[in-house]
Amino acid sequence: MDIPYSRIKGGVCAAKGFVGNAVSCGIKNPDSDRLDLALVYSEAPCQAAGAFTQNRVKAAPVRMTQSHLRANPVRAIITNSGNANACTGITGLSDARIMARTTGKLLGIRQREVAVGSTGVIGIPLPMMRIEPKLEELVAGIARNKGNDIAKSIITSDTHEKEFAISFEFEGQRIRIGGCAKGAGMINPNMATMLCYITTDANVAKACLDRAVQDAVQNTFNRITIDGDTSTNDTVLVLANGEAGNKTFKRGGKGCQIFSHALQFVMNKLAKAIVRDGERVTKFVTVEVKGAASKSDAKKVAEAVANSSLVKASWNGEDPNWGRIIHAVGYSGANVREEVIDILFNKKQACTGGLQAKTNPEVLRNIVRNREFTITIELNRGKGDYHIYAADLSPEYVDFNRSEYAYWKQAQKDGIFE
Amino acid sequence: MDIPYSRIKGGVCAAKGFVGNAVSCGIKNPDSDRLDLALVYSEAPCQAAGAFTQNRVKAAPVRMTQSHLRANPVRAIITNSGNANACTGITGLSDARIMARTTGKLLGIRQREVAVGSTGVIGIPLPMMRIEPKLEELVAGIARNKGNDIAKSIITSDTHEKEFAISFEFEGQRIRIGGCAKGAGMINPNMATMLCYITTDANVAKACLDRAVQDAVQNTFNRITIDGDTSTNDTVLVLANGEAGNKTFKRGGKGCQIFSHALQFVMNKLAKAIVRDGERVTKFVTVEVKGAASKSDAKKVAEAVANSSLVKASWNGEDPNWGRIIHAVGYSGANVREEVIDILFNKKQACTGGLQAKTNPEVLRNIVRNREFTITIELNRGKGDYHIYAADLSPEYVDFNRSEYAYWKQAQKDGIFE
Repeated sequence: MDIPYSRIKGGVCAAKGFVGNAVSCGIKNPDSDRLDLALVYSEAPCQAAGAFTQNRVKAAPVRMTQSHLRANPVRAIITNSGNANACTGITGLSDARIMARTTGKLLGIRQREVAVGSTGVIGIPLPMMRIEPKLEELVAGIARNKGNDIAKSIITSDTHEKEFAISFEFEGQRIRIGGCAKGAGMINPNMATMLCYITTDANVAKACLDRAVQDAVQNTFNRITIDGDTSTNDTVLVLANGEAGNKTFKRGGKGCQIFSHALQFVMNKLAKAIVRDGERVTKFVTVEVKGAASKSDAKKVAEAVANSSLVKASWNGEDPNWGRIIHAVGYSGANVREEVIDILFNKKQACTGGLQAKTNPEVLRNIVRNREFTITIELNRGKGDYHIYAADLSPEYVDFNRSEYAYWKQAQKDGIFE
Repeated sequence: MDIPYSRIKGGVCAAKGFVGNAVSCGIKNPDSDRLDLALVYSEAPCQAAGAFTQNRVKAAPVRMTQSHLRANPVRAIITNSGNANACTGITGLSDARIMARTTGKLLGIRQREVAVGSTGVIGIPLPMMRIEPKLEELVAGIARNKGNDIAKSIITSDTHEKEFAISFEFEGQRIRIGGCAKGAGMINPNMATMLCYITTDANVAKACLDRAVQDAVQNTFNRITIDGDTSTNDTVLVLANGEAGNKTFKRGGKGCQIFSHALQFVMNKLAKAIVRDGERVTKFVTVEVKGAASKSDAKKVAEAVANSSLVKASWNGEDPNWGRIIHAVGYSGANVREEVIDILFNKKQACTGGLQAKTNPEVLRNIVRNREFTITIELNRGKGDYHIYAADLSPEYVDFNRSEYAYWKQAQKDGIFE
């Protein structure tokens, strides 16, 4: 695809006809005034598609949004940070429904046209007494220039908001695609505690949109890992309102191909931004597996290496330790032969044929000192390849995740357990 | 089995007819005088059985010992710490062979009667120039009372040696079983960077011994996890020399059953000791899964929970966080239904039917403040159960494992890469 993309401003409200807003409810902490509730809304009806966590334990908003998407096109998203509304049973479903219904009513659309997304702590009901009174203000303030506020409102332990938008021309029409995402902990293939909302003014048929979203997620969000955990709330939602006025992109057509590619480009930017901003992350490592007996073997190897605590700790320590990498290759379950494995750091041989290569260790060490580097594992068994974006494991990550207990105390104070 | 066991002294040399020795070679650090090379030897011929790493990348001593065991009974074990002799190719196999051959020659037995075990860093050839000159002294000094020295010599990042021995009476004969083990990092189901040597003076038929070792390993060493990694060198070796004079324990017989049970008792003590002394570990947690649709589902759930970085970090932070546990249950791949899951800490309900239980969080918190506690996950789906012994993940663990680079510099100084 040789269509040039232009980076544009506006994030999730960059595409024509999309507006939104974000307000502060004090969901996690009543004394805080950080933004934690947001709305994305399309002035025109939409096509919509999504991808959701494969965790068997699914948060209430995920279940509800999946059923809304099956029923009819969604054109609004109400989303909060600070509480995942997961493991909250009937109360949780009812709270998610109230959020969708009230928002729908205020916008003059049906409850089923509203998707809900939540992220944060698991097991504590949403403090609805702080959310409900804010919905009116949220809807009243919708505007075009709120993309950045929305991006800010969905982050939790992220250090900064993540948004990205592009435009490109196709058959004389300018198409815009933009979105925002949040990540940080619990990031793993098959997604995470991750939210990602993307909007586009492309006119896309439902079948094209569905397939484009699935493909793009496979190649982007399903290839990032921070801590090997997979959350209950992972959601990617894409809304397309057709305001660009292009001839409908139909599945199988050139336009659909061009659109898929552009969507993947946006998702890839957001996915990589999530890894780079992982909890207490100091390294961004591309783990590239080549020459596996099959693609599935290549994936097993990439995931085993990218999720090994010992490998990740060595990256944090700037130790070009190929020994730990090869041992993770060995237990990955893939069909490998030690004697033919090569391991390279930024194309410099660290291990050749399963043995220490002649490269001076200081050369390798200088590579691992960079904030970003690529590890290539050449298995020399076939044509399967795969890559994954991973992060190091720092003592600070563990320290950061030691306790959420203070939050439970707050929930008790809120009377939520009574 | 109601046969009482008496705890006895002597560790791996507690059983009749077993002697050994340990010396210091400076394998990891030439300036250190810590014990790092050991020998266990049976004065009489033995039956022998073993269990080995399932990592596809296998260290040279593992490969050689497996072939020795297939060929004929092993009666001596030469073992070193400080270097794993893994990913060392032909040089590694040749070094392992030299260790077995020279030891055999000095003991007056065949090379194939000697097993070799190594543990330590991967990818650097053994410093044979420091090991070979010490073999004569090692063999010359063999004695009965060296069990503790041997236990000390095999440890690496362990904080103390691990040994355990028992005796029991069966049909008028006193039988002894004793052993030592090392663990620390890279401990996971299907074993680890773990070595365990057990000797017994029981007279056991090969078929009984093989089965007893496999069963006992399944129920002990394959149920412990520290960091989810599985090493290249894991070895459990059991030697039985028959010096107790009992009537041969044959597979299927009462004696074999009694012996299996006692062997498992010894292995369980050593396996638990490994978890308790895991690298920078502060908690010993029994993860117990009940009511799974199948035993294999129960195992998936136990392993997902016990290997989740976020769950383990919460134990370190003494946070009774059932939310992270249920999310690991959800991504374990097991067939579970969120709405019927109960989670208990030392039998106190934390989660009931997928929801926050009424137990005061302070009660749960006081349980997690203990050094040892049990988490029970009741899936209410069937009759499958499984348990696993796990440890927390501390910032200190990550810090401790950040770099082995100094060791590579030493290897360079040793001229091992030339």
